[in-house]
Amino acid sequence: MTHDLVIKGARVVSASGTTQCEIGIKDGVIATLGHDLASAEVIDATGLIALPGGIDSHVHISQPSGPGIEMADDFTTGTRAAACGGNTTVLPFCLPEEGQTLREAVAAYRAKAEGNCLTDVAFHLIVKETDPVTLGQDLPALIEAGYTSFKVFMTYQGLALSDRQILEVMSVAKAHGAMVMVHAENEDAIEFLRDRAERTGETAPYHHATTRPVPVEREATHRAISLAEIAGVPLTIVHVSNGEATEEIMRARQRGLTVFAETCPQYITLTADDLDRDGFEGAKYVCSPPPRTRDEWANIWRGIETGVFDLFSSDHCPFRFVDTAGKDAPGARQSFRNIPNGIPGVETRLPILFSEGVVKGRISLDRFAALTATNHARLYGLFPRKGAIMVGADADIALWDPTLTKPIRQSDLHHGSDYTPWEGFTVTGWPVRTLLRGVTTMQDGAPVAAAIGQHLTREAPDVLR
Amino acid sequence: MTHDLVIKGARVVSASGTTQCEIGIKDGVIATLGHDLASAEVIDATGLIALPGGIDSHVHISQPSGPGIEMADDFTTGTRAAACGGNTTVLPFCLPEEGQTLREAVAAYRAKAEGNCLTDVAFHLIVKETDPVTLGQDLPALIEAGYTSFKVFMTYQGLALSDRQILEVMSVAKAHGAMVMVHAENEDAIEFLRDRAERTGETAPYHHATTRPVPVEREATHRAISLAEIAGVPLTIVHVSNGEATEEIMRARQRGLTVFAETCPQYITLTADDLDRDGFEGAKYVCSPPPRTRDEWANIWRGIETGVFDLFSSDHCPFRFVDTAGKDAPGARQSFRNIPNGIPGVETRLPILFSEGVVKGRISLDRFAALTATNHARLYGLFPRKGAIMVGADADIALWDPTLTKPIRQSDLHHGSDYTPWEGFTVTGWPVRTLLRGVTTMQDGAPVAAAIGQHLTREAPDVLR
Amino acid sequence: MTHDLVIKGARVVSASGTTQCEIGIKDGVIATLGHDLASAEVIDATGLIALPGGIDSHVHISQPSGPGIEMADDFTTGTRAAACGGNTTVLPFCLPEEGQTLREAVAAYRAKAEGNCLTDVAFHLIVKETDPVTLGQDLPALIEAGYTSFKVFMTYQGLALSDRQILEVMSVAKAHGAMVMVHAENEDAIEFLRDRAERTGETAPYHHATTRPVPVEREATHRAISLAEIAGVPLTIVHVSNGEATEEIMRARQRGLTVFAETCPQYITLTADDLDRDGFEGAKYVCSPPPRTRDEWANIWRGIETGVFDLFSSDHCPFRFVDTAGKDAPGARQSFRNIPNGIPGVETRLPILFSEGVVKGRISLDRFAALTATNHARLYGLFPRKGAIMVGADADIALWDPTLTKPIRQSDLHHGSDYTPWEGFTVTGWPVRTLLRGVTTMQDGAPVAAAIGQHLTREAPDVLR
Amino acid sequence: MTHDLVIKGARVVSASGTTQCEIGIKDGVIATLGHDLASAEVIDATGLIALPGGIDSHVHISQPSGPGIEMADDFTTGTRAAACGGNTTVLPFCLPEEGQTLREAVAAYRAKAEGNCLTDVAFHLIVKETDPVTLGQDLPALIEAGYTSFKVFMTYQGLALSDRQILEVMSVAKAHGAMVMVHAENEDAIEFLRDRAERTGETAPYHHATTRPVPVEREATHRAISLAEIAGVPLTIVHVSNGEATEEIMRARQRGLTVFAETCPQYITLTADDLDRDGFEGAKYVCSPPPRTRDEWANIWRGIETGVFDLFSSDHCPFRFVDTAGKDAPGARQSFRNIPNGIPGVETRLPILFSEGVVKGRISLDRFAALTATNHARLYGLFPRKGAIMVGADADIALWDPTLTKPIRQSDLHHGSDYTPWEGFTVTGWPVRTLLRGVTTMQDGAPVAAAIGQHLTREAPDVLR
Repeated sequence: MTHDLVIKGARVVSASGTTQCEIGIKDGVIATLGHDLASAEVIDATGLIALPGGIDSHVHISQPSGPGIEMADDFTTGTRAAACGGNTTVLPFCLPEEGQTLREAVAAYRAKAEGNCLTDVAFHLIVKETDPVTLGQDLPALIEAGYTSFKVFMTYQGLALSDRQILEVMSVAKAHGAMVMVHAENEDAIEFLRDRAERTGETAPYHHATTRPVPVEREATHRAISLAEIAGVPLTIVHVSNGEATEEIMRARQRGLTVFAETCPQYITLTADDLDRDGFEGAKYVCSPPPRTRDEWANIWRGIETGVFDLFSSDHCPFRFVDTAGKDAPGARQSFRNIPNGIPGVETRLPILFSEGVVKGRISLDRFAALTATNHARLYGLFPRKGAIMVGADADIALWDPTLTKPIRQSDLHHGSDYTPWEGFTVTGWPVRTLLRGVTTMQDGAPVAAAIGQHLTREAPDVLR
Repeated sequence: MTHDLVIKGARVVSASGTTQCEIGIKDGVIATLGHDLASAEVIDATGLIALPGGIDSHVHISQPSGPGIEMADDFTTGTRAAACGGNTTVLPFCLPEEGQTLREAVAAYRAKAEGNCLTDVAFHLIVKETDPVTLGQDLPALIEAGYTSFKVFMTYQGLALSDRQILEVMSVAKAHGAMVMVHAENEDAIEFLRDRAERTGETAPYHHATTRPVPVEREATHRAISLAEIAGVPLTIVHVSNGEATEEIMRARQRGLTVFAETCPQYITLTADDLDRDGFEGAKYVCSPPPRTRDEWANIWRGIETGVFDLFSSDHCPFRFVDTAGKDAPGARQSFRNIPNGIPGVETRLPILFSEGVVKGRISLDRFAALTATNHARLYGLFPRKGAIMVGADADIALWDPTLTKPIRQSDLHHGSDYTPWEGFTVTGWPVRTLLRGVTTMQDGAPVAAAIGQHLTREAPDVLR
Repeated sequence: MTHDLVIKGARVVSASGTTQCEIGIKDGVIATLGHDLASAEVIDATGLIALPGGIDSHVHISQPSGPGIEMADDFTTGTRAAACGGNTTVLPFCLPEEGQTLREAVAAYRAKAEGNCLTDVAFHLIVKETDPVTLGQDLPALIEAGYTSFKVFMTYQGLALSDRQILEVMSVAKAHGAMVMVHAENEDAIEFLRDRAERTGETAPYHHATTRPVPVEREATHRAISLAEIAGVPLTIVHVSNGEATEEIMRARQRGLTVFAETCPQYITLTADDLDRDGFEGAKYVCSPPPRTRDEWANIWRGIETGVFDLFSSDHCPFRFVDTAGKDAPGARQSFRNIPNGIPGVETRLPILFSEGVVKGRISLDRFAALTATNHARLYGLFPRKGAIMVGADADIALWDPTLTKPIRQSDLHHGSDYTPWEGFTVTGWPVRTLLRGVTTMQDGAPVAAAIGQHLTREAPDVLR
Repeated sequence: MTHDLVIKGARVVSASGTTQCEIGIKDGVIATLGHDLASAEVIDATGLIALPGGIDSHVHISQPSGPGIEMADDFTTGTRAAACGGNTTVLPFCLPEEGQTLREAVAAYRAKAEGNCLTDVAFHLIVKETDPVTLGQDLPALIEAGYTSFKVFMTYQGLALSDRQILEVMSVAKAHGAMVMVHAENEDAIEFLRDRAERTGETAPYHHATTRPVPVEREATHRAISLAEIAGVPLTIVHVSNGEATEEIMRARQRGLTVFAETCPQYITLTADDLDRDGFEGAKYVCSPPPRTRDEWANIWRGIETGVFDLFSSDHCPFRFVDTAGKDAPGARQSFRNIPNGIPGVETRLPILFSEGVVKGRISLDRFAALTATNHARLYGLFPRKGAIMVGADADIALWDPTLTKPIRQSDLHHGSDYTPWEGFTVTGWPVRTLLRGVTTMQDGAPVAAAIGQHLTREAPDVLR
């Protein structure tokens, strides 16, 4: 066979290990792994590592974010940043606007994405209404159409579902074969603490962290797991930030439950003290759950190393500081309550984990591949098309230079935010080329292709097949 | 000193141990412990055991129970049954009726009790409203007036508070010094399971148990503890029924939290299978949490033996089978949902624990005293006046015959219910005489005194002093 | 009744609570608790607290300690110090000398104690040989004679038993009704670490601590518990120093095992850094297990507060610094291996716990009584004669001034050591009078009686009756 | 490239997933994964699954087994059985005979294996002496020569090392880079229980199980982990049989330790009751640790499913019933003590796990590959040459028919034992062809090649690189 493209010289990583071989690509698919492959075109990747293109299954793009606040990334900038960070697929959330049905929202998101993406995309559904049409018609139809994962929130007014509603959503997931993701923080407790903080004048960004303490997350984690136990469904707990919540997940597994867990870069590199930075800079670190302490980094690392965590995502949720916390954003200055929750991270997720995890010897290359690509594909119904360098899979590949060292700089990034929380954070190991279905989308840190990203129709999660 | 009354010949039990001595009583108080005491009157208690009069801190009397359903006990019958079961103090709940303030409810309960009691009484407050008057005025005033414990419900429509409301109630408890008791079951999960059961025709009494499975209670237990952790208050978890909930309590203590725990006779002697008895007899065992399995008995016993449980109460909540589940109660036949939750037990609590615990060698006499009297007094602000045979304490004493063996029979009991769930259950060790402040209220199983019981104004719980 | 002595005005503490009453003493026994008691003699204890006389069940006196090293206390000084520290009973260990049988050793200890004690005494047996005569004849006979507790060592060359030997000893305890106490540290691991430390020149006293790290104790604790589980006997783990060992004990109880636990003042007030004090002063803190860290203090306190620990003892094991680590003790300077293990503490145990525990609000007075007297009596077969202020018990009472504040000073102490590890440690709450069977043995910090202490023949431990 | 051999039509399994592709083999190595591969020879594997050839890292062959007892397998029969069970590599133990050095033993084993094997082989070293030559010279030299794993025993007289010896061995492993495997059972406790059982006439095979109860294994597991913690080395716990030992491993990992764990078919399919079979048949099930209960199967499965277990091995240790327990083996009849410990299983390991695990839906195909091949290669220094179907790896492949159903029959097996413990146990999913470095060694259940197996020199374990 003559290939369209062959990558030569790289160490090729899959979840089963690392080997030295060539990757032969034909029609956008990995056709051959071997040696001396014939090809029209060759990439010399000597000294580089070929990893499966990153899948970021926790990304917010073009999402309605409250009155007067626009999210900093649309699909053009969001997927551009993703590609430049070594990703080939992202899974943003589809959140219906006021009055919109889920199906209408999906159509709207599809339209916004269409023709604008530099990665492939698939959508998780955010379920914020549990009326009979949503549960009885829209969700089953959307699952059938390949939207095989929902997210439910236990926090945020207007989004948070009651336990009863969560159970109803889980029932639909059980009946029709979808994965339920949960944002686990207790809204009532947060509101109680927030009101109390405001009454006592504790309104600075730092108090975003103090009003969402660890027990708030641990409680909701235990509760979400209990609801899944009662409903009889697997569950994914997203963005776990601390050791106590991690322990709840481990205990659930020991009881025999199927619980998956995700963590994010902010929980191994940032702390609550970052929210206390001078000059209102702390507002740049407001996300939920909030970053914790250095001791919690160790707890999260132990979970990454021992397999508690299946997924390492960005929870990319980009805003512009100038809009949300700048001089013309008086609400934010009045109270942290008015600062939209979320930080940008889709472009920096993989380098941070590579540098802190692989280079520092905490995890192996194949565990890196699993945490950043393979498990995402498995959990959300994209495997085996996506997530591994394997014959028959899409030729979604990131070529990494494991020795390249440079600090993260906002000026080098491609997202729509006007800052990065990791400004100046030095990373060793960067992706230098990203290929989406065989087409180079990033080279040497810059986007290089047209918007070739496609929408992906998904299967049921592996665990439900 | 010449005493009014001396009890001679008994083994006298206090939480510090058992000794052979005389108890000299003067003016209703234990004046002397010693030998050769002078007295106007003598009780020969040779061969008997003198225990502190039982305190039952979990009793429902004359409580509004839904349209058309009257509770089977008023203060006359309820405290008569209590005294006949070896008790000298009971703590019923004060539940406001529709439109009544807590203060009005307290006044009404006081009026109902006044002059009708054969034990002393004090009231826990059930908080079902969290309006500013209740939280800001009534509760503080009532705490000040000696009502130093509240109960909140996480289940039962109309009673269940939201997490936010529970936190607000806890804040009042923290500010003013009261104990919060919680009934921990997740109402949303129960409603979900109940509706589903009804849809599939699972409407028999047995499904009361299947729709309140262990995770429903474990979840709420973890949540209640988390809320107390967030609010910074001690907490009492009432009527714990199983090992998983028990484990949550142990883990909380290991995190340094102050959590007290109560269990009841039903969780060491009854099972869910009792709810499946023929001829609708299962309705006689409907209580919440439901009885579990024999394996759970072992878990509860381990908690009793190792000190996880501080309190052993009855959760006496008496109904008449003929009213609630008889031929003229079509609702109950239609669905278990319509069977009022609760079983009678104030008269049988102590004999069951004595027989199953002390006689079978699981617990010592002084642990029995702690579980049935001393700890109740300490936890609910009645110590040192109540709860121990100690100089200066009220002469509240039960004389036990540790060898008397007979089955529990409805025909021997004094409550208002028309059945006992323990019909035919054989017990060794019965109280043969109860003294309240030195006056005999029960002898040989029969009530013998006028209604001399008084209302007790309470101090703050020991742990809050 | 006319008493020999009445104590008036004190708050009287028992494990069931504190009350204001008089204590009437007749023939050395508590005859009456009451008011207006008639007496030949009266002690005005107004403002004081009457506690059960301390029982220190972990004391080394006149014990062979290696070639050329004499223990700093004989029975005269050891029990004098104990009495001055508020104690009325001590339980030293009986360790056979080379070639001596256990029965001979008991006789020798009895002779050394006879007529020299200011407290009552009873002996634990150290079992270091497991020959047929010891196991088959001596131990059964000694148990029969009232020596109802043995200690086995898992560390110290010459003392440490193998697991097989421990099982054999436990079998005798099971067959004849005695309590097994265990010193839990893994000798092999210590030897390994000690040899390695010496090879690398780490020979200063501080390395006594580094060569006995927490896993060494946790491992042996788990192992001792496992052996007791296999043999089917209750067990007492003495001198627990850290959270991990504590957790093993909690887990064992959750499995249903009967395990008792002891801790000591050194584990809530000293740290390994004390072994690193200048000028070879660190040698004054060499004991086993070694003091740990301030974080471990918190773990031990949690165990004290939540009931993991039953016993608070001194592990008094007194040496003279001048003998063991002074200029004429070249071995000690050569290696920490040659410093005898042990610190004096019989006189300071109770004040330290009173000040750090009761005065600082961590434990109640009745928990103090349980930890320092009642539980020792129960566990080692002295109850109800000893351990509680109760009619019929020996009139062993310590009167405490809860407001007296002064630093611990070697110059104020009565033991044979030439130092105290707590020099300068300020304590609030001191015993001001000790009565042994009604006779005052200490007043205002000074011994005041003849050597009236007697040997106590013991019953089986409560748990084995 | 023209291949020597191409396998077409199979679903190809690696740890990263399953894909449909061809496997091109050249010079015994996997040269290409792709489609339409050119080849001299083709295997049509349509409908089959291509799995990495099994690696059995726990196998006893030709091992000295006590006076008069010969192990049932030499390298000819042992590796023949292994190949017929889908294996391509086995790791037997090298046990020095009396008076033999480790180096001599290695040479002797190598000689016995040379030219006789149908799988590749590598040897673990059993360390039973810790003299200076063994620890200081032989072990370092053997590690250097590629023998990068040792096994130490905590049980069996003559094999069991003391804790001190284990620490010394671990120190060598740490200094020179080898993995320590441990057989964790407490010999002292076993001896105690065994002697006691024999004294009371409990000598039947069943008492092999009762004298090695769960605490015996849990204790040794905790101890081995503690020793590894003290020495600072990773550790592999072999043949874990129950939930309590599993929990120790999980807890160790939560403390941050690196502990690997192995389990075996006997612990998910056999019980102690099998040792109680009639007619002395129970002797066929004598292995250590003994099979437990059905409840423990569930515990082990949970560990397999949730990743506690890294390795699934056979612990093949074959004897002939006629020799060891037949009429001419009076010792065995006299006491279970005289029955050699071990059961045959190298040929049935993979089908049992495939059938019970994959076919019953408990584990995925890639988890099967990890448990039976990949992780063995990683842990014992054979990766990436062995353990995965990956370009560049040896062409060690087993082709499985996932639908073939038949009972296990001794008459179908190829080992030297005269029985199988799984006689009649029905299995779905059997290997139908095994290829070792591209050469077919088994077809349709029968060995088909010459003894082409080679000795493998190993690298350091992955975790130590």
